[in-house]
Amino acid sequence: MHPNDLSLRSFVAVDPRSDFPIQNLPYGVFSTASQPAPRIGVAIGEYVLDLAALASAGLLEVAGDNVFAQGAINGFMALGLQTWSATRARISELLRHDNAELRDDAALRARALVPLHEATLHLPLTVAGFTDFYSSKEHASNVGALFRDNADPLLPNWLHIPIGYNGRASTVVVSGTAIRRPHGQLKEPGEAAPRFAQSLRLDFELEIGVVIGQGSAIGERLTEPQAEAMIFGFVLLNDWSARDIQQWEYVPLGPFQGKAFATSISPWIVTREALEPFRVAGPAQHPPPLDYLAQAGPNNYDLALEVELRSATMPAPATICATNFKFMYWSSVQQLLHHASSGCAMNVGDLLGSGTVSGPGPGQRGSLLEISANGAAPLALPGGESRGFLEDGDSVSLRGWCERDGIRIGFGAVEGTVRAAK
Amino acid sequence: MHPNDLSLRSFVAVDPRSDFPIQNLPYGVFSTASQPAPRIGVAIGEYVLDLAALASAGLLEVAGDNVFAQGAINGFMALGLQTWSATRARISELLRHDNAELRDDAALRARALVPLHEATLHLPLTVAGFTDFYSSKEHASNVGALFRDNADPLLPNWLHIPIGYNGRASTVVVSGTAIRRPHGQLKEPGEAAPRFAQSLRLDFELEIGVVIGQGSAIGERLTEPQAEAMIFGFVLLNDWSARDIQQWEYVPLGPFQGKAFATSISPWIVTREALEPFRVAGPAQHPPPLDYLAQAGPNNYDLALEVELRSATMPAPATICATNFKFMYWSSVQQLLHHASSGCAMNVGDLLGSGTVSGPGPGQRGSLLEISANGAAPLALPGGESRGFLEDGDSVSLRGWCERDGIRIGFGAVEGTVRAAK
Repeated sequence: MHPNDLSLRSFVAVDPRSDFPIQNLPYGVFSTASQPAPRIGVAIGEYVLDLAALASAGLLEVAGDNVFAQGAINGFMALGLQTWSATRARISELLRHDNAELRDDAALRARALVPLHEATLHLPLTVAGFTDFYSSKEHASNVGALFRDNADPLLPNWLHIPIGYNGRASTVVVSGTAIRRPHGQLKEPGEAAPRFAQSLRLDFELEIGVVIGQGSAIGERLTEPQAEAMIFGFVLLNDWSARDIQQWEYVPLGPFQGKAFATSISPWIVTREALEPFRVAGPAQHPPPLDYLAQAGPNNYDLALEVELRSATMPAPATICATNFKFMYWSSVQQLLHHASSGCAMNVGDLLGSGTVSGPGPGQRGSLLEISANGAAPLALPGGESRGFLEDGDSVSLRGWCERDGIRIGFGAVEGTVRAAK
Repeated sequence: MHPNDLSLRSFVAVDPRSDFPIQNLPYGVFSTASQPAPRIGVAIGEYVLDLAALASAGLLEVAGDNVFAQGAINGFMALGLQTWSATRARISELLRHDNAELRDDAALRARALVPLHEATLHLPLTVAGFTDFYSSKEHASNVGALFRDNADPLLPNWLHIPIGYNGRASTVVVSGTAIRRPHGQLKEPGEAAPRFAQSLRLDFELEIGVVIGQGSAIGERLTEPQAEAMIFGFVLLNDWSARDIQQWEYVPLGPFQGKAFATSISPWIVTREALEPFRVAGPAQHPPPLDYLAQAGPNNYDLALEVELRSATMPAPATICATNFKFMYWSSVQQLLHHASSGCAMNVGDLLGSGTVSGPGPGQRGSLLEISANGAAPLALPGGESRGFLEDGDSVSLRGWCERDGIRIGFGAVEGTVRAAK
């Protein structure tokens, strides 16, 4: 049976509202107090299945070294698409309610099924390069309208190019990492000279990150099937942004320190294979993309996304954005096709941010910049506080999931709490 | 005696015009036909001194594993400033004319001194991140004047911020690597719609690259002495640029595919220590930089730079630019201070391009964009050809050296030849 089959059941009890049924099997890197070496696991219900333990026990075949005993998923990804697929199928098989291999081996089960609350989750990959796109037409239009009052909110190249820029890989951190409010060079409109001070316009950006699992050679362009096959999976991604730093620095070479201090990702990488059943067509593309960006068939995913904000004083988080990845104008495959179009080599472990996911509706804006109109219309929070931008102590959580017939293929969350500047 | 002492002589014969006297000792990674595993060496005259062989023979102390037997210098750099300095002093000692340890060991000499013409030189470091700055006031002004006719050629932030952007680390290649003319999305002014085609405005950029040898933690800013101590050395860097791709893509997020297809660096990393005698004051900075960018003492280097161009039909190269690194407005230390100012973590192996080095004179422009006024005034070459931008078969070589009392601390060259598009 295909691992995506909805009729599959696991001997591990999984709550129907869980993000991690047997049809998901997202990869992560974890450690435990009793075994502090980070290793690779998949989430199943309220557990992490320790793949290194399964491989050691001979239940999971791996080429060469035990790639599951490594502290990053890059080694496994480098083995390629067939291995990804075969491994997922085998893990699915091992977790089935009617397979005795693991189910009836109490000692192995005790070693290999680690309760999630006992696991520390680490950055799941070594990020080779981080690239951030800008592929939501709604986001680009909202931002354009805020900063270019009298002009078309979309710049002339936007409908032709999946616009993107190279980000900073060294500050990609896993969910739960505290976010230090950055200092930077600031000059607000009307100020005579810049100052070096803490950012007062700190923001989140709701994004999906694409994890590249296979590389390409320098000088080579990609075909659509090649690009598709290089995508290992997806993560939730919060592209923390200091709008005041960004605004003063970004002309003419783009964002730099305004985006360099932190980018948070979810600990779980949901595989492209697990998302296959949720493919949908993206927005119609007019003008039609140039041939090198042409795609056949549905190229987006019906993936619900939410942002929760909780201040230091709020008893519970408030949902401040509910949107969907399907609104993205440029698809992940088109981003990758464009990325390699000059012959730019792609590497195992490259991370491609989608750009802020906003939607057409008022509750579908994926950044405070858009929600508060650059601070002009602060967002009212339950309990009486309001936010133009983030305050110290604010916690931001992004969540994402696909759902079908009561089965939820989820990403868990990526959370970060703002700490006071140093 | 300090390894920079001008009175030092080596038992290895060194031509007085050589870039590699005993006072230089630049690091590189090389292999040979008889020993194909890449390893670390230093250049001395017409030889590479094999540091892995010296370590194996017990003449060069290293912590833990033999870091010199590795195919990249990152492991050695990670050992830190004191090790860099002690190692250079020891190598200098071993090469002195009056030291018998290596000089009189014929068997070891035969193993450890490899003629340069027998060595294949590799990329000397694993590039963790590549950042490119824009720190020549003359270059920024020349470019601004070409593209923003009616305005101040310098944008308002330029005199306050060492403007930079994240480049693409995956396509940093070593000297001698052929440069494939890229395709890209192009839309020249006046064209109704973009096309995907080969770049017709291919350019070089004369730069110096800073090699970062020590990292910094996320959330930490740097002091000037900390930044200084993190710089391991310098390379020549050619930031190949497709001006037509760049022009259409770069608004609002900066250069992407126009700079992503290749960046060439010299095989030799000249250490910061070797350049110490050549420190000079940079241009006066008005307005004075903000405190976090303030530097005491001379912060530039008197480093001569030249560009040679040779077409497929020219019998010899022509020098088309002769300038000096000392003209750079923002220093390498200021670039690094700014880079970490938001708390952006720096890594061992980060590479920071200076930005195109142009000077105040007409023969001191470090790109064809500037030399030919964006193609409007093609450069006449000896033999009758002319160039607005690079043609297939063109070879571009950058050279750089410091000189004092007849001793030349040189970088060798970084060369690349343009190949036809695929």
